[in-house]
Amino acid sequence: MEKQLSVAVIGGGSWATALVKILSEQNILIHWWVRKEEDVEHILTYESNPRYASDIHINLTKVKPISDLKRAVELSSVLILAVPSAFVKEILLSLDKESYQNKIIVSGIKGMIPHENKLITDFLSFEFGVKSEHLCIIAGPCHSEEVAMEKKSYLTIGASDLETGKKVAGLLSCRFVKTSVSLDLYGIEYAAIMKNIIAIACGITHGLNYGDNFQAVLVSNALQEISRFVNALHPSDHRVVCSSAFLGDLLVTSYSQFSRNRTFGNMIGRGYSVKSAQIEMNMIAEGYYAVKGINEINKELSIDMPIIKAVYNILYEKMSPATEIKIMESKLT
Amino acid sequence: MEKQLSVAVIGGGSWATALVKILSEQNILIHWWVRKEEDVEHILTYESNPRYASDIHINLTKVKPISDLKRAVELSSVLILAVPSAFVKEILLSLDKESYQNKIIVSGIKGMIPHENKLITDFLSFEFGVKSEHLCIIAGPCHSEEVAMEKKSYLTIGASDLETGKKVAGLLSCRFVKTSVSLDLYGIEYAAIMKNIIAIACGITHGLNYGDNFQAVLVSNALQEISRFVNALHPSDHRVVCSSAFLGDLLVTSYSQFSRNRTFGNMIGRGYSVKSAQIEMNMIAEGYYAVKGINEINKELSIDMPIIKAVYNILYEKMSPATEIKIMESKLT
Repeated sequence: MEKQLSVAVIGGGSWATALVKILSEQNILIHWWVRKEEDVEHILTYESNPRYASDIHINLTKVKPISDLKRAVELSSVLILAVPSAFVKEILLSLDKESYQNKIIVSGIKGMIPHENKLITDFLSFEFGVKSEHLCIIAGPCHSEEVAMEKKSYLTIGASDLETGKKVAGLLSCRFVKTSVSLDLYGIEYAAIMKNIIAIACGITHGLNYGDNFQAVLVSNALQEISRFVNALHPSDHRVVCSSAFLGDLLVTSYSQFSRNRTFGNMIGRGYSVKSAQIEMNMIAEGYYAVKGINEINKELSIDMPIIKAVYNILYEKMSPATEIKIMESKLT
Repeated sequence: MEKQLSVAVIGGGSWATALVKILSEQNILIHWWVRKEEDVEHILTYESNPRYASDIHINLTKVKPISDLKRAVELSSVLILAVPSAFVKEILLSLDKESYQNKIIVSGIKGMIPHENKLITDFLSFEFGVKSEHLCIIAGPCHSEEVAMEKKSYLTIGASDLETGKKVAGLLSCRFVKTSVSLDLYGIEYAAIMKNIIAIACGITHGLNYGDNFQAVLVSNALQEISRFVNALHPSDHRVVCSSAFLGDLLVTSYSQFSRNRTFGNMIGRGYSVKSAQIEMNMIAEGYYAVKGINEINKELSIDMPIIKAVYNILYEKMSPATEIKIMESKLT
């Protein structure tokens, strides 16, 4: 790897902050784009993010916070996207097509482009003509809270091109993160999106008083459901659904009490309306958008997906959680 | 199903008690063998098990507690074994070969015959000549605590013969238990044994302060490890490792704070010796025996099993947990 490579991290949330911390273990320059100039000032003064993951110390000898997106992108040969999927389109479209040429673009976003039901990597190639060999995604079970504590974690880099994948894997490997490459980019990008829907389902059933026995069955059936969907959409010889990128990510999201998607589902299961749960949480869980997109895509595929179907009907068709989960229950084995 | 079928449940623990409760939903007679006559008296007087799962109400119109094993077996056409694997051989050998002829024998035991490293079903066929079409096992994520509360649970009946499997599945289906049949008897019998070793590994790493990210990776790799092992030993076209019987059972055991195997591992991870952890817990975790057996079997197979290897080395070779887990860590992806 060339010396003093420059990487841009786009996003000011906890996941972006965790990625900045991981990258700081390398001998590289990190241009960290955050939207507000006042946040840049805060980071420069206090060496931490004012809003999220504030316990992560930011090493300013390597990290350069910046609120000018164009400049951050210009200065970097690798761009890592870590913003909520709801905002990614607006942010990326604020620059022209030329800005993204000949850069490796890595998506750490676990959602799709809203309304278009497009994967982030597909959007990048359709909209800006980014070549597939320049695209990667970051997947795997990796709570930013544990990155902050330097707890051993594993990331999987999904790539179409092995060399690009290895390069990005190298950037994200450090004392406390082990990284591997998978050539099943599409599969793990979908899995990362779908796991948030499953976490909502886990929350709903928990809210309805189902127990641990049921959750284990739900998660097992969910992995089969995800597998059926991605195999129908994008068959791949490189796919291993029992891997950390598929199963591991599903586990950490489904079993975590801190998962926002699970918490959102739990409120729905306990009788909150979608709107009141969203107001109460002051945010919208990624899985809320994801289930709409996946359900749309499945209109053509007609894959048997009782779990996704139940979550969709509950969130968008105002069906009773108890009734929908009863129907789903009868389809699980 | 014929009317007033008689089933014997062999064992006085919480799992046996849960099975008695499930069976009581059928119109059958249940001869419940418990070792001590005083426990029979207690059950008859108080309609509950004095030792385990005492909150489960025993319906004495259907359940007949009995301390005479020979009589319990004679009276029944289906025998369900639910004793710890350490005692099963001694209990079964107290009757002669004839006693087991022409009966369906269902193992609910999640361990092997000690020292011989034999599956329970293999032991039954070698020792007593029980025909393979008369053998079944019960698998799937099913904490007895949740059966007591009638929380929806799923069981998988492993059988070589589909008709026998369906018959047993019918016996164990009820309002709160859904049952299915798998023809991968060997695979799920091994999976049920091996999951206890993985739960010990989860406990050890938790005790060593590894986090949720790591556990998700550990469990994902464990499922692949179990899969490699059973595929080498007994390939089967009926095998689905993402099913409730494999993955689901692994999840409920690995993620439960109440799992005895996980608790045992946790103490080892925090520095207890094997002996002091066993004394402190006043019992021996099934996984402690299982890892010895699986390690023995693997001497011939030489399957790559870094997790099982680490647990074996820690428990039997007195290797340092921190060092062994470090070695294991480097082999996971």
